[in-house]
Amino acid sequence: MAELERLLATEAEALEQLLVSLLPAETGPAAKLHAAMRYASLGGGKRLRPFLVGAGARLFDVPPARARRVGAALELIHCYSLVHDDLPAMDDAATRRGRPTCHRQFDEATAILVGDALQSLAFEVLADPATHPDPEVRCSLVEGLAKAAGAAGMCGGQQLDLAAEGASLQLDQIILLQQLKTGALFRFACESGAVLGQADAAERTALRAFADDLGLAFQIKDDLLDVAGDPALAGKELGQDQAAGKATLVAALGLDGARQRLAELRQSALVSLERFGPAAGPLRQIFDFVITRAY
Amino acid sequence: MAELERLLATEAEALEQLLVSLLPAETGPAAKLHAAMRYASLGGGKRLRPFLVGAGARLFDVPPARARRVGAALELIHCYSLVHDDLPAMDDAATRRGRPTCHRQFDEATAILVGDALQSLAFEVLADPATHPDPEVRCSLVEGLAKAAGAAGMCGGQQLDLAAEGASLQLDQIILLQQLKTGALFRFACESGAVLGQADAAERTALRAFADDLGLAFQIKDDLLDVAGDPALAGKELGQDQAAGKATLVAALGLDGARQRLAELRQSALVSLERFGPAAGPLRQIFDFVITRAY
Repeated sequence: MAELERLLATEAEALEQLLVSLLPAETGPAAKLHAAMRYASLGGGKRLRPFLVGAGARLFDVPPARARRVGAALELIHCYSLVHDDLPAMDDAATRRGRPTCHRQFDEATAILVGDALQSLAFEVLADPATHPDPEVRCSLVEGLAKAAGAAGMCGGQQLDLAAEGASLQLDQIILLQQLKTGALFRFACESGAVLGQADAAERTALRAFADDLGLAFQIKDDLLDVAGDPALAGKELGQDQAAGKATLVAALGLDGARQRLAELRQSALVSLERFGPAAGPLRQIFDFVITRAY
Repeated sequence: MAELERLLATEAEALEQLLVSLLPAETGPAAKLHAAMRYASLGGGKRLRPFLVGAGARLFDVPPARARRVGAALELIHCYSLVHDDLPAMDDAATRRGRPTCHRQFDEATAILVGDALQSLAFEVLADPATHPDPEVRCSLVEGLAKAAGAAGMCGGQQLDLAAEGASLQLDQIILLQQLKTGALFRFACESGAVLGQADAAERTALRAFADDLGLAFQIKDDLLDVAGDPALAGKELGQDQAAGKATLVAALGLDGARQRLAELRQSALVSLERFGPAAGPLRQIFDFVITRAY
């Protein structure tokens, strides 16, 4: 696991440098917006989704610089969603990654614009020829990320999450909610490596299946940490889901049931990766990292 | 002008039908989000930007169905920006197009998600092969719209607009603000016809110049209507800019100066269109419509 953590840190640093170059400089008449975009995107997070893009792309010998651009676009979408989810009208969160949330550090109007502009930038990055020389591949990435981020993906999931407050959801409803809210971006993360590598349909299907297990496992672990994690390590307030009366996977499965499900998801994920042999090592390790992490 | 208004109405109706088919149906677990997306995008507006895409595309014999898809993507971006600009943290507007604004009709969290999901959908539409068979063209459209909508375009302009409340801006600062806030989408509207038609650089430059004159004229007319328009025709509250102490073009130029500038912009716009001959008729007519409209 120490080897994986080193690899995660190295990849996160390379991604950070790329984001620094892609985000607008803190100059010009709209410098405040630019500063807030950088505040919301730089210097934080495990960069798990970009790591998955790179680990998937590696299976098809895709140059790392291309995978990193896709990872950057995906991370821009993820960061925009955090900024908007933290707004007073949504989760009304005060801290994120150990710092004031974007609307607390700047103001609410700026935070709304930050999210909007980060989303635009993500698609600008994907459409750029530097991402892949074949425009068909770039269009496929744009379409995939747009679907994963939009009403049939992340935004739809966030809508279900808002509606879930105080409601008593069934397990399958909670799973659907999570598949949309967090699962759709995980799926894009894992599948985009195959898109970059112009892999065949069976390979894409296997990576999608792996991603779906990983996304659900990530959410179960997140819920476990929300119940029993360390706020200092998390960099945000914990116990928020319980306080808001949200139906979580852990509430629906019970603590033992949740841990049992994690083990089942791990087995299923490993089966999906079998066809890729030793090259899928980082994907196997990241699964174990996700279900054992302390933050 | 009656002929143009008929053409505008015909095009608006065709665009409406396309948007109806592109927007998610009001069904499924996130039906509320889908309903709010449709509320924010359907049944309103002059659809000026999509009309410009079509009028530009016509110069290069682009099939109207392709231009209409680009127009739909652009209109989705425009509609998302209206939803977010109307939010309490931004302009706090109660009515839009004669109806309650999206956050008043639904709620604030839903309105934020509506804007986010409409933006994703816009890029999904552009990346789809139905928009143009050549993926290089589709990537160019994605990149162009992302730049026009993002920090270097519309979002940057909205940031300047928020900062302008109570500030005394110079004329060139107000012009920059408007070039970003409204001008960038007008420019994309006019230029995208040339992108679809794979026109040469000189033709693209001429359409950009026309768009810049049109965008500024549109804004001056908007400011004039805000001072002396009919709220019943506008479908929104007027006099808001003055009340908010915003520096408008009309405040900076004076009423006579503003009307003089409109005449100069018209001359300049006509010069830009000369190379296109009679085929540019709708673009000439739309300029006159924009500066003489009563709403």
